[in-house]
Amino acid sequence: MSRGENPAMTLALDVAAAAGAAGEVPVGAVLVDGSGNVVARSGNRVERDRDTTAHAEMLVLREGAARLGTKFLAECDLYVTLEPCPMCAAAIAFARLRRLYFGAFDPKGGGVEHGPRIFDQPTCHHRPEIYGGIGERRAAALLREFFRDKR
Amino acid sequence: MSRGENPAMTLALDVAAAAGAAGEVPVGAVLVDGSGNVVARSGNRVERDRDTTAHAEMLVLREGAARLGTKFLAECDLYVTLEPCPMCAAAIAFARLRRLYFGAFDPKGGGVEHGPRIFDQPTCHHRPEIYGGIGERRAAALLREFFRDKR
Repeated sequence: MSRGENPAMTLALDVAAAAGAAGEVPVGAVLVDGSGNVVARSGNRVERDRDTTAHAEMLVLREGAARLGTKFLAECDLYVTLEPCPMCAAAIAFARLRRLYFGAFDPKGGGVEHGPRIFDQPTCHHRPEIYGGIGERRAAALLREFFRDKR
Repeated sequence: MSRGENPAMTLALDVAAAAGAAGEVPVGAVLVDGSGNVVARSGNRVERDRDTTAHAEMLVLREGAARLGTKFLAECDLYVTLEPCPMCAAAIAFARLRRLYFGAFDPKGGGVEHGPRIFDQPTCHHRPEIYGGIGERRAAALLREFFRDKR
């Protein structure tokens, strides 16, 4: 797959851009079922919801489980524009997601390839297939612009 | 403080017992503000909500932020009957909680004293004061009974 051409990641990037325009850290997530249908999409909503746990990934995992009426999302894939943090990585393991696609790598806050590397822990019970760097260029540019404008 | 005599932990244990009676893994959490008032209390609701992220800690953090109308819970203390998992530990760091009191240690699933030891990571931006083993005996007994009955 060439970078930036995945339609679900393109949608996640659009959602991230919309979140950024609304004053949120621009991160977006899309949950897709086994047939490739979008089950849930969300941007980061920490500011809007005044909830430090309202990361895009948490929101689509919860909405996806509610929509599908199932506790586990074993047939589902998650597309997120930034490497998930440790909270979201652990939530992805609990939900037993099939695949995780993420955009920009996050050396400061990531929990997949950085920090606690949640899925590599011996106590982690589920590891999805993981594909990092998908749509990375646009994801990283969105974040750079956002933080540049904040300074 | 002698074990089991903290009123907030006693309440968390009661909430945990009620969750267990409802078929949930018996874990309970209570969020207390800087004056010692209970802001939110919840048992684990993974089964009821069909949501693998509906751990007691996540629920009281979200409810507490909503009730107080603040993103950060810097004046608040959390009492939870079991060592938080990595997801909840990371959420506690994001919420900037003042103190974390937990009951039973969890070598298999914990993320504070075990597994990824979230608060010890160099990329973790906030570490509450942490007191483990508060009310441990009753917390551990609740969990033992629950899993014994399941087998």
